[in-house]
Amino acid sequence: MCEANAYLVDKSGQESLFLESVDKVEPEEEGIRLVSIFGEQKFIKGKIHSLSLVEHKVFIQPE
Amino acid sequence: MCEANAYLVDKSGQESLFLESVDKVEPEEEGIRLVSIFGEQKFIKGKIHSLSLVEHKVFIQPE
Repeated sequence: MCEANAYLVDKSGQESLFLESVDKVEPEEEGIRLVSIFGEQKFIKGKIHSLSLVEHKVFIQPE
Repeated sequence: MCEANAYLVDKSGQESLFLESVDKVEPEEEGIRLVSIFGEQKFIKGKIHSLSLVEHKVFIQPE
């Protein structure tokens, strides 16, 4: 399985774990919805900032 | 290795392969830079649209 963990990145560059084992990230009207391989869903106002897939990391920039 | 393939998605939803075996995606001033696990780099004016990591897919929306 090639899921990744999603981290929020604040303006100082600090990372905090938002959701583990993310499969899908989909845009919605005012943000993005993340869905884990276990079916857990989280919505956040923000956007995908960057990816580091070999490290299994998705970085999200909150609005 | 958990790299993914990056696809451009046009307005009709059509997907076309842009870069294989993507490791990193980083924002730049006017778009995003993709770097493959082989060190190949591509820049595109656009943004990350969505992710489907278990399918190893990154979708990019060109501007």
